Parts: sequence; C-alpha cells; structure tokens
Amino acid sequence: MRETEIGGLMRRRDFFKTAGLGAAAAGVTAPAIAQSMPETKWRLTSGFPRSLDLLFGGAEVFCKAVAEATDNKFRIEPSPAGEIAAGARALDAAGEGTVEMAQTASYYSVDKDPTFAFGTAVPFGLNGRMQNAWFTSGGGELLNAFYAKHKVVAFAAGNTGCQMGGWFRKELTQPSDLSGLKFRIGGLAAQMLAKLGVVPQQVAGPDLASALEQGTIDAAAWVGPYDDDKAGLLKGADTYHYPAWWEGGALILNFVNLDRWNALTPTYRAVLRTACASTNVWMQSKYDAANPAALKRLVGGGARLKQFPDEVMDACYKAASDVYAETSAKNADFKKICDHMMAFRGDQYLWWQLAEYGFDTYMIKARSRA
Amino acid sequence: MRETEIGGLMRRRDFFKTAGLGAAAAGVTAPAIAQSMPETKWRLTSGFPRSLDLLFGGAEVFCKAVAEATDNKFRIEPSPAGEIAAGARALDAAGEGTVEMAQTASYYSVDKDPTFAFGTAVPFGLNGRMQNAWFTSGGGELLNAFYAKHKVVAFAAGNTGCQMGGWFRKELTQPSDLSGLKFRIGGLAAQMLAKLGVVPQQVAGPDLASALEQGTIDAAAWVGPYDDDKAGLLKGADTYHYPAWWEGGALILNFVNLDRWNALTPTYRAVLRTACASTNVWMQSKYDAANPAALKRLVGGGARLKQFPDEVMDACYKAASDVYAETSAKNADFKKICDHMMAFRGDQYLWWQLAEYGFDTYMIKARSRA
Repeated sequence: MRETEIGGLMRRRDFFKTAGLGAAAAGVTAPAIAQSMPETKWRLTSGFPRSLDLLFGGAEVFCKAVAEATDNKFRIEPSPAGEIAAGARALDAAGEGTVEMAQTASYYSVDKDPTFAFGTAVPFGLNGRMQNAWFTSGGGELLNAFYAKHKVVAFAAGNTGCQMGGWFRKELTQPSDLSGLKFRIGGLAAQMLAKLGVVPQQVAGPDLASALEQGTIDAAAWVGPYDDDKAGLLKGADTYHYPAWWEGGALILNFVNLDRWNALTPTYRAVLRTACASTNVWMQSKYDAANPAALKRLVGGGARLKQFPDEVMDACYKAASDVYAETSAKNADFKKICDHMMAFRGDQYLWWQLAEYGFDTYMIKARSRA
Repeated sequence: MRETEIGGLMRRRDFFKTAGLGAAAAGVTAPAIAQSMPETKWRLTSGFPRSLDLLFGGAEVFCKAVAEATDNKFRIEPSPAGEIAAGARALDAAGEGTVEMAQTASYYSVDKDPTFAFGTAVPFGLNGRMQNAWFTSGGGELLNAFYAKHKVVAFAAGNTGCQMGGWFRKELTQPSDLSGLKFRIGGLAAQMLAKLGVVPQQVAGPDLASALEQGTIDAAAWVGPYDDDKAGLLKGADTYHYPAWWEGGALILNFVNLDRWNALTPTYRAVLRTACASTNVWMQSKYDAANPAALKRLVGGGARLKQFPDEVMDACYKAASDVYAETSAKNADFKKICDHMMAFRGDQYLWWQLAEYGFDTYMIKARSRA
C-alpha cells in the first residue's frame, strides 16, 4: 500500500508542476485544474411523494450512492414532489435549471409532447427487462436526442415492474363496460381509453381511496400491490384487474440538466452513470421482493383478482394502435422512436416466448400443483 | 463552483489539523489517513474465456467502471479463464489471495460444496429478476455467511437470463429418452439427470461442436442463442430444446477476497458495490438485446426449436426435489439456503403469474396474430 501511495504523491507532484504551466496560461488557479472531484452540491426534485417509498426511495438510494463513492465530495439533496416543484413539473425544473436533476416518470410530460412517454413505458410496449435492453441498444440514444431539445439527459434508474390494472368498483367483463367509466388514469393510456368511451379522471394519490369509496370515480390505476395496499385502495373498490397493459415495466429515469451534465468532470459523470444503474436494479428488486406479501394482505382483505378479459384487451390494443398511427402521422420525433421500439418489441417477444416464458410457465404450473 | 471549492479547501485544512492529532497518536502519517482513494491495483480472474464476450465482457465493463469512477486511482486488471487460473478455479484463486477478485458462476464450485450453486442458479429455482430480488432480500446475506468460510464476499454482477436447454442430436419425446444419454452438463443438474439415466459429460467449450458432430456426445447445454451461435453448435446437432430448467436466470457474481474487501476504504467499497450492480444491468441488457438476432440466424440455418415435453420436465422436477431433499438431509448450509430460496420462489410466482405473466402472455399472443 505504501509504495502505491508514494507513487501517487509523486505523480501528483509531477502533475502540479505541469499543471502550473497550464494554469498560468489559462489564467486559472492550479487546484481548479487538478480537481477531478471538486466539492459539488446539487439538488434533485422527484416526481414522487415520500409516501411512495420505493419510488422516492430510489432518489435517496441514488444520492447516497453518489456521496459514498466520492467521499461525500459530490452531494445531491433529494426532495420529494411538491417541495421544490410539483411532481408533474420535476422534469421541467431540471430542464430550466431550477435544480440540477429530476427523478421521475417521463410520461408525466406527455401533455407537452407524447414522445416523452417512451422513456418510462407506453401501452403494449415492453416489459421491464426489455425496456432496459432497449434503452441500452439504441433506444436511449434516440430518447436523449429528443430530451436534449428540452435541455436534459436521461439515465435509467429504477423500475416498478409490470403494474396492476387498478381498482374497479364493478368488474369489467366486456369492452362496452368501458363506456362512460370514470377511470383515474393518465398518459397515452388515457387517450387510448377515451376512444372506447372512458372519461379519464385526474385525482391526486392521497385522495384516491375516498374518491373510489364515494363513487366520484369508478376505477383507479395506481401502481401495484405494495403501493396500492399502503394507499388503502381496497377500501374503495374490491375488483383488482390486471395487467396494466399501459405499463409492462415502468422505467424510472434520472434527468440531468444538460449544461450541468456537460460541466461535470469525467469522474463525476462515471459516478453518476454507475449510481443510476445500480439504483435501477435496487428499485426493481425491492418491488419484486415487496409485492407478494402485500398481495397476500390484499387478498386476505377481500380483493378479487381478475384478469382483464381478452375482448377488453383486444379492444384496447386496437385503440392503442390507432393512437400510435395518428400521433406518428403528425409528430416525427414520436414516429421515429415508436417505430424503433415496436420493431425491438417484435424481436424481443420472438425470443422471450421460448426460454424465459417456458421457464415461468412451468414454474407457475408446478407451484399450483404443490 | 468557486465557493464550494473554497469551502472544500477550508474543510480539508480543518481536517488535517485534527487528523494530525490522530496520526500522531496512532503513529502513522497524516496522508495515509487523509487518503480515501489511495492508488490501488488489483487483479481479477474470470471463470469465462474471452470468446464468451458478454460474460467476460462483464468483467471488462466492471473494471472500466471502477477506474472511471476513481479517476484511475483504483485499477483492476481483468484476465480471462486460463491466464491466471483455470475457469473452474477462479473462485478459489480469490479465496486463496492469488488475486483480489474473481468473476464467475458460483456453481462451478459445486464439487467442493453443493451450497455454492445457489448464488448463480439452481434447477427449478428463480428467474433472473427474482434471483436479484432474492439476493437483496436475505439471500445475499445467507450466501455471504457461507462464502465467508471460503474467504470471499460476493456481489451480483451480471445475468444471462434464462438459458436454452441445449443441442440434441435426437429430439427428446419422453423421460426414457434420457436413459444412457451422453449429455454435456454440469452442476446440480448433472446429479439430477443422472437419476434419470443421463451420463453427464465434461467437454470444454471449444470442443463442443466437434464432439456433437462426431457423436462422442449426444447433447450439449451451453448458454443461449447468442453464445451458441458463435460456438457453432448447430453444426453438431439441430434439435434446440428449451428451457434450461437448471438456469432460470444465471446470476454472475464478483467475488472479492474477504481480507482485501475489509481493508478497502469506505469510498472504494461504495465504488465497487455500485460498479457490480451497474454491470448486472449491463450484462442482462446486452444478452436480451443480442439473443433475438442470433435466434433468427440459428433458425435460418436449420435449428429446430422444441420445448421439453411436460413429461420430461415433470420427471426432472421430481429428480430435482429428491436431490434437494437428500442433500439437505446431510448438509446444514445447503438446507438453510435451499429452504429460504424455495419459500421465496413460492411467493414470487404467486405474484409473477398475475401482472408480469399476464402482460407477457398477451404480448406473445398479439405478436403471433400480427
């Protein structure tokens, strides 16, 4: 150990000697050049409230990872939705430079441009693992070319896995049941469901259980067993439909203000990238581990698990295809990313149906026999 | 930026003042205490050859991530199987301190103790995402209590996803076809298949294609489409069975020599942990992205895709249960970890069969209609 330390000191001494020349030339002080790890303090605003403790927890875990890997020299302070910016405005706050970073679901910004949605999840898109694979195989590059127009760069940093379809006061048995349904749902799925007669509702998380209970809404999509149990949604409706065809695997993204990203040292960029990726595994693992116990509690409390009928799924799939075609016709960014993702999806499921799906199928059968 | 730098310098000056007292007391020099990031050079020996370029690639990506996040102060040199230690001996090399780290599949060490297998994958165990979830929810702790006896600590650092069952010169149609089958397979699966009459074979990767072609073996399990295609296995056999029920998701582990781990600074421990986790996502994403094109090439070249018949799967499941019971009866470490994982598996598939499986099922059906 001592030898390498001495080597390090010598190298640093040499460096200061040459850095001194450069510094004199550039007119800045030597330490500024020498510093690959300057004391840096950033703020991160989350799209999620503290009560979604695995989603906002991802922001906390990420910030802790960055601090620990830099001997506390690079500190990022995470704030839940509402403290610095509203949850739906987190991405804007990073783009405008109010904060250096946002952690959020990109589909909160679809009203600005539907193209935003692809980063997190789109209806009948990819499952969680495929979304990661797509992000690292061309998808992330396309997305970031688009996000750059909004002055941010995105990194994959968490996933909930496939979500549940939500809580319904009355079971859906056919597509016509969607007509007039007051359903709390957002993003592209709301546009698609509107084609089938749904009247999309916006209700904040804390008000969901009572809105269902009082019948001011007929149904509500939230996340999955772990978060839905904590939100008490079973109190308002007992039919728990699945799957959320609009979120096969919701990838949570960390957005960094583009100028701030470009100004980071290479060392800090590496730390930030790596910490995002490690948070990505962390959140998915936590959700996967936490959901079964919550599911048991919900079923024990009277939740009735109901798969969406195939006819309903088919009607939604058709509505989704129509929205993809219509939006692609008028939005070149959307079309480019949509075409790329959907081609990727076709290849992924060609392969997925063999080993992965074959293994899961057998294990589910074996479990039901045991 | 300047203000925080000045703050940093002031803090550091304060630190040296107090550190000086501590250093004098402990009899060591101040810089040794101040250094959270000393120049450090390690070696990593991989269980995989360079030709398995996503598996060994994981070692390269990990080492690069560590170097980049530490301004090249912590450098780890990755070596493929055979350069420093044989692939099957990588874990031993780390435990014995020949090298600081190994990157490998833990089931390469089952001959020493079958308990090793649980870290990577066991027959009819978990899929890739569940293996991550188990590792971070008690499984990793149990494993590392066991691995500590062998002087290493393990970190999740990659996954191939569910593998293919392998290449067979003759299609398996019933359990009796396993009798006398010369099948290149290792680990716990070999013991289980031996109960059904299989004669397990050991053949090195580069010799597999010709061993199949010449009929010195009847069948061979390797990895999945991407690696199998490069290994030219289709030249030797054209029936491609799936799934590999013995590897629902093979988690690749980075093992660190326990003394070396304990001697690392907190900063370097954080960097190492984070770099392992980011490599974990990287490898799975790369495999997921690369497999479809390879599968198309293989099918184009004449590979016949055949799911293992349910009767064969059932016979193997029974043999596996017998081996688990027999081994648990005589190995307390094995029993403890096996019971924990199998209880976790039951809960995981209780949940998985709803949203995740429901989404995949619909997407596979929709794709076949398109």
